[in-house]
Amino acid sequence: MQIALVGGTGDIGEGLTLRFGRDTDHELVVGSRTAEKAADAAAAYEETLADRGIDRSIEGADNETAVEGADVVILSVPPYHAEDTVDSVGDAVGDDAVLVSPAVGMQGDGDGLHYHPPSAGSVAALVADAAPEGVPVVAAFTNLSADRLTDLDEEFDLDTPLVGDDDDAKARVADLAEGVEGLGAVDAGPLANAAEVESLTPLVINVARYTDDLEHVGVKFV
Amino acid sequence: MQIALVGGTGDIGEGLTLRFGRDTDHELVVGSRTAEKAADAAAAYEETLADRGIDRSIEGADNETAVEGADVVILSVPPYHAEDTVDSVGDAVGDDAVLVSPAVGMQGDGDGLHYHPPSAGSVAALVADAAPEGVPVVAAFTNLSADRLTDLDEEFDLDTPLVGDDDDAKARVADLAEGVEGLGAVDAGPLANAAEVESLTPLVINVARYTDDLEHVGVKFV
Repeated sequence: MQIALVGGTGDIGEGLTLRFGRDTDHELVVGSRTAEKAADAAAAYEETLADRGIDRSIEGADNETAVEGADVVILSVPPYHAEDTVDSVGDAVGDDAVLVSPAVGMQGDGDGLHYHPPSAGSVAALVADAAPEGVPVVAAFTNLSADRLTDLDEEFDLDTPLVGDDDDAKARVADLAEGVEGLGAVDAGPLANAAEVESLTPLVINVARYTDDLEHVGVKFV
Repeated sequence: MQIALVGGTGDIGEGLTLRFGRDTDHELVVGSRTAEKAADAAAAYEETLADRGIDRSIEGADNETAVEGADVVILSVPPYHAEDTVDSVGDAVGDDAVLVSPAVGMQGDGDGLHYHPPSAGSVAALVADAAPEGVPVVAAFTNLSADRLTDLDEEFDLDTPLVGDDDDAKARVADLAEGVEGLGAVDAGPLANAAEVESLTPLVINVARYTDDLEHVGVKFV
């Protein structure tokens, strides 16, 4: 498959690109607001993989170019940029693409992080409202630590829950997720259940903060 | 320790009593609105354990009597009864007891279950507001399937996240939880983080509903 990582110069985009680059054969295109920044990041990711003996070509392009022809478009941008980003790349997204929303709205205070969804109810719902007609949206990769994704010495035995209204789209994203070594995908139902999936993220971050011996926590559904 | 299971005739109360009865030496008192109903349930739990060769004495009493002298009081009642229940047993709860809140407010629709906290922000916050002065509250056991607790053939490899403002109280509840074979306790911080803990429950139920091969799902923080 061809995978576009819109906002792929950010930390979650970096982590996903490195894991997909190491563990799968998908064609990877890193997107950014400028083609130059994207190309620099793609080159840096190639180098990180080359240092581990993995010869891998990763493209870089401006976001709009990056999504052209992509089977899966991952919106690896902060939650408050999710809507803008979909608006800006929407016309270039193919009819048979799937939009993936990994972002989560959170607010922090002295106690920890709290779930703070946009007024649409979830970032995934916001993305679905902005998505081009007929392009399905799947929330996925919401609960993975960027640090842990990026550190390729970290072995995974983790799950990511998916929600979406289109079963084929969900299966495509599950395939992509399960291509990452040690990562499983579980189905949490339709997009209407996105808030429950997204609110797992502040929980795992709070657990990592307060529990000794759990630094970059994730979850496994058992 | 002496453990009171207020509302212990319900399904989560039954499951916790059976697991504590099988795996720990704590003194167990099942509470109910009437002493008779409590005594019947306690006798039934004793019998379930006896069928497995475990000779175990379990007391039954009305809720107010059940909490007398208890080190840990578990409010195993539906979320909409949590406040009433604390009001009714409050005077009998000892100064050095810990109140444990395992209930979660949820609403279901065709898509799945959704987190629906009371206006206090979480059931745990509601319980804390109603609790006698100085008696600490810990949210725990919120994410465990009653069916899975009750089925003693089900082997656990699960965690339950705890929140609370009093470290000693949290340690006491963590000890209690970790006495159950295969159950771990992780710390999710102060009570202000309770909503994130409670909202895990609809997620695991949705995942169990939609994911093949996961019937009674739980989580492990890894």
